[in-house]
Amino acid sequence: MRISRKPTGEKFFELFTEIGRNIGASVELLRTFVRAPVEQRAELAERMHALENAGDDATHAIIQHLDRSFVTPFDREDIYRLASTLDDVVDHMDAAVDLATLYRVGELPDGVAAQTDLLCRAARLTAEAMPRLAEPQELTAFWVEVNQLENEADQVYRRLLSELFNGQRDALEVMKLKDVVDELEAAADAFEHVADAVHSIAVKEA
Amino acid sequence: MRISRKPTGEKFFELFTEIGRNIGASVELLRTFVRAPVEQRAELAERMHALENAGDDATHAIIQHLDRSFVTPFDREDIYRLASTLDDVVDHMDAAVDLATLYRVGELPDGVAAQTDLLCRAARLTAEAMPRLAEPQELTAFWVEVNQLENEADQVYRRLLSELFNGQRDALEVMKLKDVVDELEAAADAFEHVADAVHSIAVKEA
Amino acid sequence: MRISRKPTGEKFFELFTEIGRNIGASVELLRTFVRAPVEQRAELAERMHALENAGDDATHAIIQHLDRSFVTPFDREDIYRLASTLDDVVDHMDAAVDLATLYRVGELPDGVAAQTDLLCRAARLTAEAMPRLAEPQELTAFWVEVNQLENEADQVYRRLLSELFNGQRDALEVMKLKDVVDELEAAADAFEHVADAVHSIAVKEA
Repeated sequence: MRISRKPTGEKFFELFTEIGRNIGASVELLRTFVRAPVEQRAELAERMHALENAGDDATHAIIQHLDRSFVTPFDREDIYRLASTLDDVVDHMDAAVDLATLYRVGELPDGVAAQTDLLCRAARLTAEAMPRLAEPQELTAFWVEVNQLENEADQVYRRLLSELFNGQRDALEVMKLKDVVDELEAAADAFEHVADAVHSIAVKEA
Repeated sequence: MRISRKPTGEKFFELFTEIGRNIGASVELLRTFVRAPVEQRAELAERMHALENAGDDATHAIIQHLDRSFVTPFDREDIYRLASTLDDVVDHMDAAVDLATLYRVGELPDGVAAQTDLLCRAARLTAEAMPRLAEPQELTAFWVEVNQLENEADQVYRRLLSELFNGQRDALEVMKLKDVVDELEAAADAFEHVADAVHSIAVKEA
Repeated sequence: MRISRKPTGEKFFELFTEIGRNIGASVELLRTFVRAPVEQRAELAERMHALENAGDDATHAIIQHLDRSFVTPFDREDIYRLASTLDDVVDHMDAAVDLATLYRVGELPDGVAAQTDLLCRAARLTAEAMPRLAEPQELTAFWVEVNQLENEADQVYRRLLSELFNGQRDALEVMKLKDVVDELEAAADAFEHVADAVHSIAVKEA
């Protein structure tokens, strides 16, 4: 007999599902941002920051619920790790948007849109996976696909770096753009860490 | 009946109190440093490094005491996390001082003194909180206040970044100053992580 | 009577020994790379990447074995931490090689060869320590020596930074070289974290 983990986990699964939806909304906003005219950036950056705050609240809710729960659906450290890595995803997207606005960078290189499209695909997989955490052993495909996306993101990032440093831009502009591009790459890495956290839960259930 | 955690925790509380005092001394030195004439920097940097070493020794003492203790006043991972985050605070202040000296940067922008003043307030709160760890549930105000300071530090940091990149400085000077300013921002973040570690202990006691 | 930890730990010790050997091979390749003519870099970078992949596989094997083992030779979090820090070492060396190739930097400053020689010595100590993990209390010398090497690496790194910023190079070149040099410094730090993980195991056995 397999005992369902639903009852003890219900609240956790709800909160993770909410975070998954919030990541989906954040990445859509990011896609709008990187294609938007420069004069719209400040307002979009504010909306991104509101999503980042909402994500923070949900993360704190999970950690408080964890600290107060006697029985948890998975190992406590796995729940903590999953919540932290999901939080990192939105933090890095918010930082990218924030820096692009603050630095008043001009049009973003094409590679940035490519980075963002890959983040979008990872976000969709993540939002779909969160409501299914009660059956972690069915989430191994999620882990494999996010890892593939991260490899693609790495290639895009490397092409972007070599374009940034090809001598066509002055050093200050390179520094600004690199800060933005690095945050987007960190967001792709953070998705991989989310997938690793899910994978670690899945392996223990196998 | 509430069983006092004093006896098992005594040694830990003493060591954390010592670390709190050391952070207070480090931040005072940092304030002196950012206002001092350039020719005094090397000597002040050496004194900061001595404080960083003293902090390391106290951190190692906590971790050794933890590894050797059968009974601990809080969860082992919370003690470990609190010790590591406190250590990070001084590491980042030491790195800021060190880089400013090594790079021979000129006068620091005004925003750096503002960053340092906020670090000073966070350090004072931390030094006051450490001797009170035996009653963690009374430390929720500490957590709230340090988080507010971190938000203020974020604003100061963002203004500094946009000033650094406004085109008045050459790229090499921007790179040097940004390294220093980033370390001070990392110190402010580290105080927030200290507060989070304390908060996590407090929640479990609630 | 001291109960041998060999039977439960055998598989872990084998995997850590394999990782130790892989780090040794990676650092030898790094030494070749920093002295090689620019036109050989791409091919050497590919070989480094293959070693990084092999290291990843061994790390995943340890984590899977950990997730599936009921009895482990040390605390689970210590095994996890040792595996992650060993993985970081090769990641940073691979990133250094990768960035130097991607950025098409010219000849590397002399200090880079000095950084690499110190990494080589730390790698040798690590490769020797891994097969001896079953007797962790005999590894305190390892911890002390790696910490000394990290202090030396710090001095070399600081001299490199002040050379990079002495005004002889243009800002873009400084940015590129600094990225490479920072990754090598991160590799030296990662060796210290490996040593800390081993030390933490040793202290618990004392």
